[in-house]
Amino acid sequence: MQTRRQLILIEAAKLFKAKGYSATSMRDLAEKVGLEAASLYNHISSKEELLQEICFDIAKRYVTQLSQIEDDKSKNAVEKLKALINLHITMIAGNREEVFVCNNEWKHLSEPILGKFKDVRKDYENRFINIIKIGIERQEIKKVNPTTALYTILSAVRWVEIWYQPDRGIPVEEISQDIANILLNGLKA
Amino acid sequence: MQTRRQLILIEAAKLFKAKGYSATSMRDLAEKVGLEAASLYNHISSKEELLQEICFDIAKRYVTQLSQIEDDKSKNAVEKLKALINLHITMIAGNREEVFVCNNEWKHLSEPILGKFKDVRKDYENRFINIIKIGIERQEIKKVNPTTALYTILSAVRWVEIWYQPDRGIPVEEISQDIANILLNGLKA
Repeated sequence: MQTRRQLILIEAAKLFKAKGYSATSMRDLAEKVGLEAASLYNHISSKEELLQEICFDIAKRYVTQLSQIEDDKSKNAVEKLKALINLHITMIAGNREEVFVCNNEWKHLSEPILGKFKDVRKDYENRFINIIKIGIERQEIKKVNPTTALYTILSAVRWVEIWYQPDRGIPVEEISQDIANILLNGLKA
Repeated sequence: MQTRRQLILIEAAKLFKAKGYSATSMRDLAEKVGLEAASLYNHISSKEELLQEICFDIAKRYVTQLSQIEDDKSKNAVEKLKALINLHITMIAGNREEVFVCNNEWKHLSEPILGKFKDVRKDYENRFINIIKIGIERQEIKKVNPTTALYTILSAVRWVEIWYQPDRGIPVEEISQDIANILLNGLKA
């Protein structure tokens, strides 16, 4: 059962994605959740509080999963990358608006929260790159520039964020498998 | 030797990328090129004319190169994809602002030009997908969903658009080779 606050967060994410954070007013949000704008403030203190909660909630879920993947002794570097690709695609498919807001609207956070959020992102990227570097050292991954590899992977999964619609007829598992297959094994037959 | 008009186009692309097309005024542009706003209209008729010229000029250069790659009988499908990946990255590196505007600000074109531009994009994507489909048929390319393959390639090269700076110390040829290597041969060693 969703609380009123959860409903507000869900509708806020939809509006922030559709109109952008800056162009979304508390009045727009109140209308969406069926409350007077004044009553909205019984549940939340500001528009930025909503942005913070969406961004940090999504970031935390990525980091939690990354930690599990890092610690998984049964997986080599290639399998870890495959798990990370799958993580990104299933997060997008399951939380489309929230992931979009976390990836595109975080710039509207204000300091000191903005700095904290940038640190979380940077830390995530560094740990992701580290998996690639270890894989290259162990000769499980090809010798490529690890930064190029990181951004190629992150960008390759990003189009799913813009393009994916459940009704396009390609199941998310198939997209995830195809993208992982391309990135890990290459398009060449 | 650059004509005044070419200079205006170059500065317009820089402004459209930095501020966005909508937020750029003719006054901003006049200031950049060292003209009175009124004199600017001796060289161009409107802000949208500049957007049109930037978008269609870049699109035309992509299409011309695509035609050459399609017609190159010496290349199999994998080599054609490699040439296309290299085309995208060198276009970005050599025309950073213009390619950004063409990829991100075209939405501000107005009809009927907008529809014409969308047709050019769609045609380019269809011809790109066709190279992938032929490659799959000939068993030169792995059996993946051709649409997924197209967007994975196009997205993978897009990060270069945002991230690439000549002073980051990775030569563009190295980035192009690494990305082509990842997409065609995979990260797996």
